[in-house]
Amino acid sequence: MGLRVAVIGLGRGAVLTVPALAAQARIELVAGCDPDPAARAGFAARHGVPACETVEALLANADFDAAYIASPHEFHAAHTLAMAGAAKHVLVEKPMAVTLVEAASMIRAAETAGTVLMVGPSHGYDPPVEAAAALVASGAVGGVRLIHAFNYTDFLYRPRRPAELDTARGGGVILSQATHQIDMVRRIAASPVTSVRAWTGGWDARVTEGAFTALLFFANGAVANLTYSGYARYDSDALAGWVGEMGGAKSPAAHGQARALLAAIDERQAKAARTFAAGAVSSGASKHHERFGSVLITCEQADLALTPSGLDIHADDGVRRVAVPLPSIPRAGVAEAFAHAVLDGWPVPFDGRWGLESLAICHAILLSAREGRDVTPSELYPNVSERTL
Amino acid sequence: MGLRVAVIGLGRGAVLTVPALAAQARIELVAGCDPDPAARAGFAARHGVPACETVEALLANADFDAAYIASPHEFHAAHTLAMAGAAKHVLVEKPMAVTLVEAASMIRAAETAGTVLMVGPSHGYDPPVEAAAALVASGAVGGVRLIHAFNYTDFLYRPRRPAELDTARGGGVILSQATHQIDMVRRIAASPVTSVRAWTGGWDARVTEGAFTALLFFANGAVANLTYSGYARYDSDALAGWVGEMGGAKSPAAHGQARALLAAIDERQAKAARTFAAGAVSSGASKHHERFGSVLITCEQADLALTPSGLDIHADDGVRRVAVPLPSIPRAGVAEAFAHAVLDGWPVPFDGRWGLESLAICHAILLSAREGRDVTPSELYPNVSERTL
Repeated sequence: MGLRVAVIGLGRGAVLTVPALAAQARIELVAGCDPDPAARAGFAARHGVPACETVEALLANADFDAAYIASPHEFHAAHTLAMAGAAKHVLVEKPMAVTLVEAASMIRAAETAGTVLMVGPSHGYDPPVEAAAALVASGAVGGVRLIHAFNYTDFLYRPRRPAELDTARGGGVILSQATHQIDMVRRIAASPVTSVRAWTGGWDARVTEGAFTALLFFANGAVANLTYSGYARYDSDALAGWVGEMGGAKSPAAHGQARALLAAIDERQAKAARTFAAGAVSSGASKHHERFGSVLITCEQADLALTPSGLDIHADDGVRRVAVPLPSIPRAGVAEAFAHAVLDGWPVPFDGRWGLESLAICHAILLSAREGRDVTPSELYPNVSERTL
Repeated sequence: MGLRVAVIGLGRGAVLTVPALAAQARIELVAGCDPDPAARAGFAARHGVPACETVEALLANADFDAAYIASPHEFHAAHTLAMAGAAKHVLVEKPMAVTLVEAASMIRAAETAGTVLMVGPSHGYDPPVEAAAALVASGAVGGVRLIHAFNYTDFLYRPRRPAELDTARGGGVILSQATHQIDMVRRIAASPVTSVRAWTGGWDARVTEGAFTALLFFANGAVANLTYSGYARYDSDALAGWVGEMGGAKSPAAHGQARALLAAIDERQAKAARTFAAGAVSSGASKHHERFGSVLITCEQADLALTPSGLDIHADDGVRRVAVPLPSIPRAGVAEAFAHAVLDGWPVPFDGRWGLESLAICHAILLSAREGRDVTPSELYPNVSERTL
């Protein structure tokens, strides 16, 4: 028995993830949904299934078991509640919501409906992250002590909708980009984050949180040091042999061009050009894993560096370069995990509670930077009952 | 008129710095001082000047104007006080002292004597750091917002004296290594550090603070993110084309060997082998600048990356690689600045107050990590009068 999936939101996220859903043997792609006619037409043409304008129309007209929700951040909660209300399972993009109240309501709705709520994809699912987490969990390299992650990108200068530059509507690099680093380091440290101290920076004409740096303190004594700049002229993918976020080769010159292009084009059109509307397609099979900047994991007996191919294990007897097998298609693991969760009852890698905790860390970063003090993420959702969590 | 300089402490620091003092046209090297007979003999043979056993003997027998104090950290204060008491100018190695009380007493002693007190060398003097600070100060790249610095080394596994692994006696990587990063980022940010939040880690058989990560918040709104591991199997000089701390080429294999060598040798003998005792010499003229890990400076209009050759300026129109002229000999600038300070009355780059402030940031890192909260460095020396500072 297969899983019939509808896709809500046919933007950039869907372009990158739908191929993995379509390629998963037990998933059948049955419908799409987006207010933009061009995006619907592009999706329908590419995947041979109909797409409708609204979630209401989708529920009325399509026969499906689950939804992959890739709409803008500010609609994640409403769309998840609508799906859970119709007893549909949900795979929702990160960040799972904009506010913690929204996130808690999504968890409750799925619990009430008895449906799966899975958050993803994010770079926390990247196979090298999974391999590093497994190696740490095995005890073979001693306890994890320090995780150092940074990423310098042109994120702020890629084409953006206004909401993407408005923190209150889920914009800025904290909710959108820090989430990746948070998921990665949480998976590796495998311990609750008890305190966050952070700085955020916004400058330039595109004022939102465009950069941040933060320390995340874990209950097991480990710490993660996260840094991100979306204003960067420097491109940290230079340190990974110019392999980009999606695992593909990248031109050293392309990075600097984002600003110039942005100045020359119509931003709304450019944004649409990265969606199904313009027939954009995922780069598909790649020679490298998807990745997110530099990640170095200091354990008591080894340093682990994530690489585009897998993992470099720096130990007493030298460096061992571990090639982690590439998936058949990028994000195949996310699609497979979702199918297992719904069809086989397996636990999901990142469930609603995980998503809420990562979102709370995002808000702790924002609050710590604003108030200049440590913030305990769990204190930001005191009204979410223990039962729910 | 020249400056006659005596060298107190003929260990590793002196091996690296004395050549620059000896090469400075207005400095005359006149004497050395060290309790170790082999170090004295090696120094005398190499530089053709006598060396005595104690500071008292030095003061009684040698005719000199100034002392370069490169003794172990725990003796910096006593040696500086002895020199100031005899009206000698002082160039003292970083960290200027172990405690803030010591540092304040050194400042007072030099003020009372009317002598120069300069702290150095440190990587804050490196010509690429100076070039970056000048570029930022010029306003040409906009305000500095985020400085990201990290260094992964085998510091803990190089041969060490017991005091170097004992924080109370000035050991551990905070006083010894963080000081470099602190001097670098302070020089570039050019603003007081108002708050520090940090984590320190110690593990392995060599338990001291062997690793740390910290956020330094500046009064001008900028932040510095510092990370250091002296336990590292990974070597971050890989990111700089295997150019090491002293600007020389480095074998990728040498890093991992530090642990193995340490296990096989007599540590006390190995430590001595890096001093004048064994005829150790500075690597001398190098193809690259001295450097200290990775430093990336995010300004409002450009990202500046320190490189072994100078500075990469990543701006809107691409990358400009700036070659900063190499000094005639490593650390020539430190020797020249000291001569200018004493002979010409020029202000010194890093004076006693600078040294005390950097030391206070070190102690703020230790205290923040211990107590899990922000620490204001200036609150750690409330009893040092404004007059003194």
